[in-house]
Amino acid sequence: MISFVRAGDPFDSLDTPAMVIDAPAMTDNIAAMMDRIRPTGVHVRPHLKTAKSPTIAKLMLQAGARGICVAKLAEAEVMAAHSIDDILITTEIAGRSKLARLVALVREHPGVKVVVDGEAGVIALEQALRQDSTTIDVLLELDVGQGRCGVLPGAPALALAECVRRQSRLRLVGLQGYEGHLQHIRESHVREERCTEAVTRLTETAEALRRAGFEIAIVTTGGTGTAEICARCPGVTEVQPGSFVFMDVAYRDAIGPGYAQALTVLSTVISRPRPGEAVVDAGLKSLSTDMGMPVPKGLPDVRYRPLGDEHGLLCWADDSAVALDVGDRLELIPSHIDTTINLHDDYVVVSDRRVTGIWPVAARGKVQ
Amino acid sequence: MISFVRAGDPFDSLDTPAMVIDAPAMTDNIAAMMDRIRPTGVHVRPHLKTAKSPTIAKLMLQAGARGICVAKLAEAEVMAAHSIDDILITTEIAGRSKLARLVALVREHPGVKVVVDGEAGVIALEQALRQDSTTIDVLLELDVGQGRCGVLPGAPALALAECVRRQSRLRLVGLQGYEGHLQHIRESHVREERCTEAVTRLTETAEALRRAGFEIAIVTTGGTGTAEICARCPGVTEVQPGSFVFMDVAYRDAIGPGYAQALTVLSTVISRPRPGEAVVDAGLKSLSTDMGMPVPKGLPDVRYRPLGDEHGLLCWADDSAVALDVGDRLELIPSHIDTTINLHDDYVVVSDRRVTGIWPVAARGKVQ
Repeated sequence: MISFVRAGDPFDSLDTPAMVIDAPAMTDNIAAMMDRIRPTGVHVRPHLKTAKSPTIAKLMLQAGARGICVAKLAEAEVMAAHSIDDILITTEIAGRSKLARLVALVREHPGVKVVVDGEAGVIALEQALRQDSTTIDVLLELDVGQGRCGVLPGAPALALAECVRRQSRLRLVGLQGYEGHLQHIRESHVREERCTEAVTRLTETAEALRRAGFEIAIVTTGGTGTAEICARCPGVTEVQPGSFVFMDVAYRDAIGPGYAQALTVLSTVISRPRPGEAVVDAGLKSLSTDMGMPVPKGLPDVRYRPLGDEHGLLCWADDSAVALDVGDRLELIPSHIDTTINLHDDYVVVSDRRVTGIWPVAARGKVQ
Repeated sequence: MISFVRAGDPFDSLDTPAMVIDAPAMTDNIAAMMDRIRPTGVHVRPHLKTAKSPTIAKLMLQAGARGICVAKLAEAEVMAAHSIDDILITTEIAGRSKLARLVALVREHPGVKVVVDGEAGVIALEQALRQDSTTIDVLLELDVGQGRCGVLPGAPALALAECVRRQSRLRLVGLQGYEGHLQHIRESHVREERCTEAVTRLTETAEALRRAGFEIAIVTTGGTGTAEICARCPGVTEVQPGSFVFMDVAYRDAIGPGYAQALTVLSTVISRPRPGEAVVDAGLKSLSTDMGMPVPKGLPDVRYRPLGDEHGLLCWADDSAVALDVGDRLELIPSHIDTTINLHDDYVVVSDRRVTGIWPVAARGKVQ
């Protein structure tokens, strides 16, 4: 918990490093995604692995989202405990302990769905469910080119669907295929072309399964970089974007300014050791760098890089152009919000330079 | 909290990803560091920014450590709340809110010390203390070549010491200089040569300050890569290693097998999509990659890389040489333990393949 912070506190009084939501910008981003997808008739099922907050999940559901995605069972447990019903776990579940937890969760929350991508996983899931009287809705995960998890489209997917049909506790309800490798392609026509190609593999397999007698109600795909493209592809029923809610440097560089930068890490200058350099209190434990460097907000001449766990270096070329002293504060825009949010216990929600709320990152660290 | 885990549980029943301590190896590492430094007469003040656990801090104090280091005030608050007295905060403190918290902490815990590296910081600290009746022990931080925080050795340090002397609530007790840029130099003679040179700047400035009438009781430096070198340098009074307690791939590659790999992240294979590849449930949110890739333990032919927040790819050249199926488990050795530990809420402590304890990473996320 962030201590000493209460709704009504001025932004300028916040201790640092603090992860700050620009509330109006976040609200606009949610509305923009819904407005852009709605005309296609496709549903939005936002991916909450990014925001990890039931509060934000509910804002999205109120704005018209179909349900939510999470990456991990432990995230689903958090969301279900906050009365969210329609939850798709987008990662395969394996291991005895985890399967037992899944069965317990689905028994109480039948809207929890999972993906499967191989016979071994299907059979282990069936066996776990047989020890109970529970059934579960499953989606086949297809590898549409990402090369991560997923059964191959076409015949292998058909064979896996038949395997699911032979089980008594699994009901096949759909297909998932995520083109994660295409999210950050900068040339929009290349992104669109390759995405359409990937999604076609998904929708063609959905059609083949329907011809084989399977009821495929859900065809789910897409991220922040491809959601609008996917929603225009015939046969897609829902999209799974997550990062649009706050954006980050990596997505901004890839897809442009269609959504606002709504999340920053507020930091303080702790040292001015040399001309043209300042050291801030935000390092690798406040801001992730797995997708590049965070960017100082409103300081175009200043660059940031981490100098260890708890230090960050700001540097600029012309020392007279930037005035930053010990105790001064600035905001840093994360390069990758998923891994940055996962470092922090709380969001500080700010509107008109006042704190309007403290929202726990309730699913932070829920990797199991 | 990790659910469903209790002391006595078999290692093979743990859910994953789980951060696991090999308890005998950790105990050996603590004993080894103490044994190697003891003959020099130099004290060990381990850096708890790494382990972030009061339980582990106390094991080190029982083994003979002089006190502890932390990087952040919030870490010091956690350690002080667990009755640890002698705490050096190794990072400069700035900002009104944080200075108020520091004053409150030092009032109750006079063994808390901080570093300063500039007049602005000294004066802000003095002003915060004047609103109370509290005094504080401070160390000058010197830049001994790292180029992060720190006043320069020699005349600038002397001027800053004079500035501290003019204050009424600050007592100068020592010098800190950290050669963080030298920790991972692989050629041991180069590391030793450059470290000795850096430490000489520190000890020469300590001597100059003593000649100017300052009582410099503490001269503190060193990390896991340099602690033994520093301890042999005349004039050093204590060393600050942290990572030796568990080690990691980056330190092992740099300094060799002098300390054992005592921390792993246990993970489960969730998919076997292609020959020579397996996908595990540990990605960027379970294992940091800021200092390179984690390494599968006991599987020399298998390489790991993250495939997103919650996926990791294992690959190997000869598919017949490695048998890994869905549900199988393996341990991954972190590349950088500081940032990996900070992702997890708990340590699972294991001895003889049985769980002997669950230790919270009590200072996890304490960046403020």
